[in-house]
Amino acid sequence: MRTLIRNGTVVNSTGTVAADVLVDGETIVAVTAPGVFTEADRIVDASGKYVLPGGIDAHTHMEMPFGGTVSADSFETGTKAAAWGGTTTIVDFAVQQKGTLLQSTLDKWHEKADGNCAIDYGFHMIVSDVNDTTLKEMDACVEAGVNSFKMFMAYPGALYSTDGEILRAMRKATESGSTIMMHAENGIAIDELVAVALAEGRTEPVQHGITRPPELEGEATHRAIQLAKVTGAPLYIVHLSARHALEAVAEARDAGQNVFAETCPQYLYLSIEDLAKPEFEGAKYVASPPLRPKDHQADLWKGLRTNDLSVVSTDHCPFCFKDQKELGRDDFSKIPNGMPGVEHRMDLLHQGVVAGELTLARWVEVSSTTPARMFGMYPRKGVIAPGSDADIVVYDPAAKQTLSAETHHMNVDYSAYEGMEITGRVSTVLSRGEIVVDGGEFHGRAGHGRFLRRDLCQYLS
Amino acid sequence: MRTLIRNGTVVNSTGTVAADVLVDGETIVAVTAPGVFTEADRIVDASGKYVLPGGIDAHTHMEMPFGGTVSADSFETGTKAAAWGGTTTIVDFAVQQKGTLLQSTLDKWHEKADGNCAIDYGFHMIVSDVNDTTLKEMDACVEAGVNSFKMFMAYPGALYSTDGEILRAMRKATESGSTIMMHAENGIAIDELVAVALAEGRTEPVQHGITRPPELEGEATHRAIQLAKVTGAPLYIVHLSARHALEAVAEARDAGQNVFAETCPQYLYLSIEDLAKPEFEGAKYVASPPLRPKDHQADLWKGLRTNDLSVVSTDHCPFCFKDQKELGRDDFSKIPNGMPGVEHRMDLLHQGVVAGELTLARWVEVSSTTPARMFGMYPRKGVIAPGSDADIVVYDPAAKQTLSAETHHMNVDYSAYEGMEITGRVSTVLSRGEIVVDGGEFHGRAGHGRFLRRDLCQYLS
Amino acid sequence: MRTLIRNGTVVNSTGTVAADVLVDGETIVAVTAPGVFTEADRIVDASGKYVLPGGIDAHTHMEMPFGGTVSADSFETGTKAAAWGGTTTIVDFAVQQKGTLLQSTLDKWHEKADGNCAIDYGFHMIVSDVNDTTLKEMDACVEAGVNSFKMFMAYPGALYSTDGEILRAMRKATESGSTIMMHAENGIAIDELVAVALAEGRTEPVQHGITRPPELEGEATHRAIQLAKVTGAPLYIVHLSARHALEAVAEARDAGQNVFAETCPQYLYLSIEDLAKPEFEGAKYVASPPLRPKDHQADLWKGLRTNDLSVVSTDHCPFCFKDQKELGRDDFSKIPNGMPGVEHRMDLLHQGVVAGELTLARWVEVSSTTPARMFGMYPRKGVIAPGSDADIVVYDPAAKQTLSAETHHMNVDYSAYEGMEITGRVSTVLSRGEIVVDGGEFHGRAGHGRFLRRDLCQYLS
Amino acid sequence: MRTLIRNGTVVNSTGTVAADVLVDGETIVAVTAPGVFTEADRIVDASGKYVLPGGIDAHTHMEMPFGGTVSADSFETGTKAAAWGGTTTIVDFAVQQKGTLLQSTLDKWHEKADGNCAIDYGFHMIVSDVNDTTLKEMDACVEAGVNSFKMFMAYPGALYSTDGEILRAMRKATESGSTIMMHAENGIAIDELVAVALAEGRTEPVQHGITRPPELEGEATHRAIQLAKVTGAPLYIVHLSARHALEAVAEARDAGQNVFAETCPQYLYLSIEDLAKPEFEGAKYVASPPLRPKDHQADLWKGLRTNDLSVVSTDHCPFCFKDQKELGRDDFSKIPNGMPGVEHRMDLLHQGVVAGELTLARWVEVSSTTPARMFGMYPRKGVIAPGSDADIVVYDPAAKQTLSAETHHMNVDYSAYEGMEITGRVSTVLSRGEIVVDGGEFHGRAGHGRFLRRDLCQYLS
Repeated sequence: MRTLIRNGTVVNSTGTVAADVLVDGETIVAVTAPGVFTEADRIVDASGKYVLPGGIDAHTHMEMPFGGTVSADSFETGTKAAAWGGTTTIVDFAVQQKGTLLQSTLDKWHEKADGNCAIDYGFHMIVSDVNDTTLKEMDACVEAGVNSFKMFMAYPGALYSTDGEILRAMRKATESGSTIMMHAENGIAIDELVAVALAEGRTEPVQHGITRPPELEGEATHRAIQLAKVTGAPLYIVHLSARHALEAVAEARDAGQNVFAETCPQYLYLSIEDLAKPEFEGAKYVASPPLRPKDHQADLWKGLRTNDLSVVSTDHCPFCFKDQKELGRDDFSKIPNGMPGVEHRMDLLHQGVVAGELTLARWVEVSSTTPARMFGMYPRKGVIAPGSDADIVVYDPAAKQTLSAETHHMNVDYSAYEGMEITGRVSTVLSRGEIVVDGGEFHGRAGHGRFLRRDLCQYLS
Repeated sequence: MRTLIRNGTVVNSTGTVAADVLVDGETIVAVTAPGVFTEADRIVDASGKYVLPGGIDAHTHMEMPFGGTVSADSFETGTKAAAWGGTTTIVDFAVQQKGTLLQSTLDKWHEKADGNCAIDYGFHMIVSDVNDTTLKEMDACVEAGVNSFKMFMAYPGALYSTDGEILRAMRKATESGSTIMMHAENGIAIDELVAVALAEGRTEPVQHGITRPPELEGEATHRAIQLAKVTGAPLYIVHLSARHALEAVAEARDAGQNVFAETCPQYLYLSIEDLAKPEFEGAKYVASPPLRPKDHQADLWKGLRTNDLSVVSTDHCPFCFKDQKELGRDDFSKIPNGMPGVEHRMDLLHQGVVAGELTLARWVEVSSTTPARMFGMYPRKGVIAPGSDADIVVYDPAAKQTLSAETHHMNVDYSAYEGMEITGRVSTVLSRGEIVVDGGEFHGRAGHGRFLRRDLCQYLS
Repeated sequence: MRTLIRNGTVVNSTGTVAADVLVDGETIVAVTAPGVFTEADRIVDASGKYVLPGGIDAHTHMEMPFGGTVSADSFETGTKAAAWGGTTTIVDFAVQQKGTLLQSTLDKWHEKADGNCAIDYGFHMIVSDVNDTTLKEMDACVEAGVNSFKMFMAYPGALYSTDGEILRAMRKATESGSTIMMHAENGIAIDELVAVALAEGRTEPVQHGITRPPELEGEATHRAIQLAKVTGAPLYIVHLSARHALEAVAEARDAGQNVFAETCPQYLYLSIEDLAKPEFEGAKYVASPPLRPKDHQADLWKGLRTNDLSVVSTDHCPFCFKDQKELGRDDFSKIPNGMPGVEHRMDLLHQGVVAGELTLARWVEVSSTTPARMFGMYPRKGVIAPGSDADIVVYDPAAKQTLSAETHHMNVDYSAYEGMEITGRVSTVLSRGEIVVDGGEFHGRAGHGRFLRRDLCQYLS
Repeated sequence: MRTLIRNGTVVNSTGTVAADVLVDGETIVAVTAPGVFTEADRIVDASGKYVLPGGIDAHTHMEMPFGGTVSADSFETGTKAAAWGGTTTIVDFAVQQKGTLLQSTLDKWHEKADGNCAIDYGFHMIVSDVNDTTLKEMDACVEAGVNSFKMFMAYPGALYSTDGEILRAMRKATESGSTIMMHAENGIAIDELVAVALAEGRTEPVQHGITRPPELEGEATHRAIQLAKVTGAPLYIVHLSARHALEAVAEARDAGQNVFAETCPQYLYLSIEDLAKPEFEGAKYVASPPLRPKDHQADLWKGLRTNDLSVVSTDHCPFCFKDQKELGRDDFSKIPNGMPGVEHRMDLLHQGVVAGELTLARWVEVSSTTPARMFGMYPRKGVIAPGSDADIVVYDPAAKQTLSAETHHMNVDYSAYEGMEITGRVSTVLSRGEIVVDGGEFHGRAGHGRFLRRDLCQYLS
C-alpha cells in the first residue's frame, strides 16, 4: 500500500520545502521534488497545505489516579482526541505507587494502554519510592525502552521525593545516561501556605494560585539544577510556568549544563485571572504549577524562541467539572489538579505562528522534532524523512475553527478554551501510514497504536 | 544526468538517517529509503560514510586589499581549496573603500569573482563610508541579494565606523530587515594600547594579542548589542574569540534580542601561546581579534553547544609568511591581519565530534544548515532535501590525514595547523550536481560557481 | 570662641546618639554625653533636633560657561544657597577648554571662587584636551589637591573625549591613584538620534529625553567600566539616572572593581513627564542625562540602599527660564543643559527618610560622609567628631516648608520643585565654627569659605 | 572612676582620627581633640596605637552539646579568651532541643552564662522545633532581647527544619521584624552523599569536605533567600564559606532584599587542604560548612570589601583533638563539627589590613560596628562615641606574635593556626570601663559580663 502526499509544503524543523512524500506501508520511503512520483495506491492532495511530522505530546496522563479520582480520558479516548488534533505520538506517565515495584507499575500501564491506543505511545516512569530495589529496577526500565524518570518536589505525602532521594535517583540516572524529569515546585513550603490559607478561610480556586507563588517554582527549579550538577544527571523540567524558573533554566543552559524544559499551552494563553473566575469556574483551571499572572506569558513565548524552553507538551490530565472538580468546592486543595489539552496543542501553537511569536519551522520543532530527539524517538518520529514512520499531518493553515466542549473529542465536560477562535486546522492525519483523520472524520482505531521503546536523549553533551 | 548516492548515512542538522540521495542535474530530487532507486547515470557508493550538505563558509576574504598588500588566495584558488575541504559555498566580503560607492564596490567584487569560482558564492558588503548615498545604496544591495552589511568598531582610519555611523546604518538595516555584521573590538582604545607598546619598544607579534585584551572585545560586543537594541536591527557578531564577548551575546539572546554570533576554528584550537612563538613565527597567527589564552577555548566549544555561537566560519584571509607577514618584522602593528583556513573548517570541526565536543548533527548545523538559514540560502543550501542544490559532501569519518602547507591547496606558504593529525576526510564533493572532488583528485573548474542572491535571515523574531 | 550644641541627637553615618558637641574656633573639640560641658561662649539648643555633619555636594557648576551662556549662580550666590540648605561644602568643576592648560584652568577657577564663597569648596578638574602636556599637568593637579578628573563620553565637539583619550587619562590616573569621573552617555550615538529628531521636525523639550535613551547611558557606563578595568583606574560615575547604568555599576561592584556612582535628587523625584510639560515648560527640566520614565525612580532609591549608588549630589547648573532656557525654544538641542538644586538636596533626601526609603544614618552617609571619604576630605569633613571642621547642621525634622522660586536663594527664576511640600528644615548651620544660617536668617559672608586641598579616595582596594 | 585614653588613633568604621577618649564609669563620656582633658583617675597612653571599639563576635557556641559531647570552652573560659583577643561582646546560641520550650532553653543558657562571663554577652535562639507553642514563644524571646532565630537546613534528625517549618518561622519573624539566621547547607542531600562515601569505605576527614560540595551551600542559600522573599523576613546567612553562596547573596542584595551574610576567619585563611592533612590531623579542621578549595578565599575577601559579606564572626565551637575529635577516627561523620577561634578573630582580620585586603575602617566595621548594628546593640556597642559602653581595645599594630595552642587561652588542645605569625596585637582591653587585659596580663573576672537585651536589626528597608 503506497500513499503519495503531493503538492504540499513540507515543514520540518529547519524550514519549508515544496516536496512530495511517498509512503510505503508504515514508512516514508521518499521525499522528492514535486512530481517525481505520480502514482500510488492512494493520493492525498496537499495543495495549499502544510505537510508536518506528526505532533508528539511528551506529557500526558491518561486514566491516571489522582486525589481519589481518575483522569477522565482513557488511553482510547485520549489518543483519539490527540489524533484529531494532529498529535500522533504521546508519552504518558506510569505512576509508581509507594510500596510497589517499577516493573509491576510498567505492567499495569501496559495493561491499560496496550491494544487501546489509536496512535503510538511511550512511557515515562514516575518514581515515587526511591529505595535499593527501585534503583536497580531503573536499569530494567531503560532496557524496556523507558529511560526518563519523573520525580516530584511537590505533593508531599504522595508523589514527593526528598532531595536525598532525588540525589540517589540522579546518581543512578547518570550511570545509564537516562533523564530525570522534574515537577519543580517546593511542595513542602507550599503545603504550609495552603494550610495558612485554609486556616484563614480562603478556600476558593484562586487560592490554588496564590499559595503556589512563582518564587517557589523558581526555587525548586534552581534546586533541581544544583542536584543535577552535583550528580551529572540530565535534567528535564516539566510544565515550566513562571519567569523565575525560566531564568534558572537559562542560566544553567548558558553554563552548558544538560538542562532542558518544556512549557504547556495553558501557560502561554491562560492566566491566574482564569483561576479567579467566579462561581467555582476557576476550578476548571486548577493544575500545578498554577496559571500565572499574564505578564509571564511573553517571557514564555520568548523562552520558546531562545530554546530555553525546548518543548511544548500539554500535561493533559482532564477532570470533569461535574463530580470531579467539584470535589474541591469547599476547599481548593481538594480540587483534582489537571486540565484537558491533548487535542489542541498543535492548533494553539499554530496561533503563535499566526501571531508572529514562532516561525513555522519552530512550531514543528517544539511540537514534534525536539520531543522526538529529547526522548530518543528520532528519526523514527519527529521528521518528514525517508525511513521515518509515516506519522504525517496535512494541515490547512487557512481554515477556521472555534474550540468548544461541544465539539472536542476529549472525554471531559468543559473546554479551557471555550469559544476561542483558531486559524488553522488539521486536514488529514496519518499514523504509521494509515489515515486516521480525514475530511472531518475519524478513520483510526483503538489498537493501531504501538508501544515505543525509546532510546536516550540525543541532546546530551 | 542523474547521480545516485547510496548506502550512506545522511547527516542533517537534526540527526542521521540511512538514506539514498538522488540528484538530477543540479538538484536533489529525492531522498529515499535505501534501495528505492537503483539506477542512475552515475552511482556514488557511500557505504560507511556520511552524506552531508556541503559546507558553507560565511566569512572569507579572497584577494582582499589590507595594509598595503592583498590576501593571497584569489577567488579561484580560494574556492578550489574550499571545495577540497568540503565547503561548497562561501560568502565573501566586498569592501567599500571610503569615498567610493557600494555599487561600484559590488561591481568590482563581481568582476573578481564571476567566472573564477569553483563553487557557489555570495557577498556581504563592508560599509566603511556611511553617508546619505551609501544608505540609499544599501537598499539596492538588498535588491541585488546582498543583505548583510559588515561594519568595524576596529581599525580607526581605515574601515572603522563611529557609533553614530553604526546607528545610522542600523536604522537603515532595520527598515529592510537586513543584518548588521560587526567586527566588535574597541579599535580606538586598542590603538592607544598599541601606541604605548610601540613607545615602550614592545614590537614582537605577541604584542598584537596583549594590546587587544578580551575586555575590549567584550566591551565592543556589548556596545554593538545596545546600538542594535536602540534601533531594532538584527546583529551578527563575526569571529567572536573571547569569553567576555560570549557572555554579552548570551545575555542578549536570553533576553530574546536578534543577536547572533560566529566563532572560527583558530579560536577553538589555537591560542596566544602560538602568537608568542619565537623567531617571528608568531606572525603566522596574527589576526583580529587575536588568539586568546587557552582557557577561552572551552567556553567557545560550550557556546557552540548552547547555540550562543551559532556558526563556525573561517575568516579566511591568508597572507604568506614571506614578504607579507614579514612586513611587520620590526613592528607587530604592520603585520597583515589574517590567517588561512577555508580548506580545513569541516575537518577541524569533525575533530570536535571525535572529541565529544559536538554531536554529528550539530557539526552539520554550525557548518552548513545555520549559515544557510542565517544568510537566506535555505533550503537551497544547508540541507540534504529534495529541491535543494546538490551540494553534497561524502565524508569518510575513519580516514586519517595530517594537515600541512605541503599538501594543502590554499595559496599560502604556511599552515597554521602544520603537522596536526586529523581523523576524517572528505571523500567526494558535489557542487550543484557536479563532482568536483573525488578519489583525491580535483574535477571542478573555475567558473562553475554561481553568484547567490540571498534572502533575509530566517531567524528573526 | 567656644560653641556648645547641646541636647540634640547627633546623627552620623552609622547611627544616632544623644550627645553634645563642643566647638572651639573652627573645629569640633569634643563630642560628649549630654551635660559634660555646660558652658561656652555660645550655646545652641538642639532639643528635638538632629545634629548632622554639614552636607557635601560633590557636583556643582557655578558660573560655568555652557552652550554660549553661563550658569546663573556665581560662587557667591551658589554657596550661599547651599548653606541655606544645609550644605557646607561643595566640590565644583573647573573646565579645561580645548587648547588650554589645566593650570590656567585651575587658576581661572580659583579666581572665580577665591574670596567669594560662603562655605568651603574644592575642585574637580574636567579634562577635555588629552595630550602629553595635559597628562603631565594631571600630576600637578593632584599636588594641588585636585585629584578627581572628569571626562565626557557625551558632548562631541565640546567636552567629549574619545575612548583612546579616556584610556590615556585613566592610565595616568592609575599611577597617582586619582579618580576618573565619568559623564557616561554615548554622545556620538545620541547626536545621530538628535539629528534624526530635528530632521523629522521633533523640536520640543521632551525630545531631549527621547533622543538620549537609557540604553545609551547603560552602554557608556559599561564601556567606562571596561576601560577602567583594563587600566586599573578608580572610576566614579556621575549623575547616574537609569536602571541600565545601575545594573552595570552593580555588576562591577559585585566583582570588586573600584567603581562608584552618584545619583541626583532630580532623578529620584522627577521624570520624563516633567520634560513633556507643555508650553516649553519642559525646558526647565532639560539636563543630561535626561529625566527618565518614573519606574526608574524605585530602582535608584534601591541603589542608594544597596550602596551601588554611594552619593547624592545635585549637578547644580542653573539656567534661567527666561533668556537662557529660551535659547532652545525652536530646537531642544539648543536648550542649555542643567537644573538648579544645590539648596534642596538635604531636604529632598530627608523626604526619603520620611517616606521610609532611607534610614537617618544612610541620609547622612550619602549626603555627607561618603562624599567626604570618596573625595579625600574625611575626617575633616563628613562626620561629627573631635578634630573635624565644625561644619554642623542643626536640622528640625518636624518643620514644614514649601519649595518655591519665590523663596529659594538660588539665582534662578524657577524651581524644579515648585510647590512641593517638605517635612523637615535646616534650623542652624555652622561652617567651620561660624554660624552662617540661624533663625531663618543668613549670617555668613562671601569669602569665609576656603579652598580644600583634597586627598585621594578612601575606598580604594 | 574616670579613665583617659590619650594620644591614640581612634578607628571607627568610617575612618581614623587622632583623639582622646574619656571614660567615666562604664561609659565613654567624651571623644575629644588630643589634650582637651588631661586628668583622670587612670590614664592609658595609646601613643602609636589604635583605639578601637571592642570586637563583637556574633557567632559563638560555648559549652554546647553536639554529637554526644560538649564544646570545650565554658562561658568563662571562652569569654576570657575572647577578651584576650580584643573581643568584648559575644552573641552565643541558645539551642532548643526538640520537645522543649524556648523559654526553658533560654533559662538554661542564662544559667550557664550568668555570672560566668568576663565580657558582655547576648543570645540568639536556635529554633529546632517549630510548632504553635514555639511560634508564640518567639514573641516572648523578642521581648526578652533575643530577636534573632537561627534555623538549620543541615543536620536532619537533629537541628534540621523543613522548608515548611522555616516558612512558618519566617512568617512569625516578619511580624516582629526579627531576623532569621540560617545555616544554609542542603543537609538532606548531603546525608545521601555521606552515606555513599561511607558505603564506599571513604572514612577519612577530607570526606567531610567532599560530601558537602559548595553547590549544596549555594543551593540552600538560594532557597533560604526565596523563602525569605515569599515571607518578607529579614535573613542573615551564617558562616558563608563558598563562592556559590556569595553569588546568591549578592544577587539578592542587588535586588534590595533584606539579606545579609557573615563569613569566618577559617574560610579566609584555611582550605580543604587542611582537611586533607594525614594522620587524622584533618579532623582539627572539621566544621560545617567545610573548608573550601583555596580559590574561594579571594572571593570571600572580595565579598568583605563589597559588603555582600557584612560581618566576620568565628563560629567558635572548640572540640579537643584528643577524646573529642577522635570520636570520628573511623568515620568522618562522627567527628564533632567545630573549630576554635574566638580569641584570634581581631588579629586574623588585622592581617587582612596588613595584606591590603581591608582598610582599617573596614576592619572595625566588619568586626564590631556592623555586628552591633546588625544585632541591635548600636550605639551602645560598636563605636567609640560618647554614651557608648566603654568597650575599648588599644591595639598595637606593630607588635608581633605567633599563634599557638601553647600560648592561647581557649580551652582546647590545638590551634587551627599553629605557628602562624601575626603582625599586630591587643595591648589593652576595657570592658564597660574596666581594664580586663593589659600588659600581657588578664585583669578581668568571670561575672563582670552582663546580658545584653538587644534591639532589632538596624539595616532593614
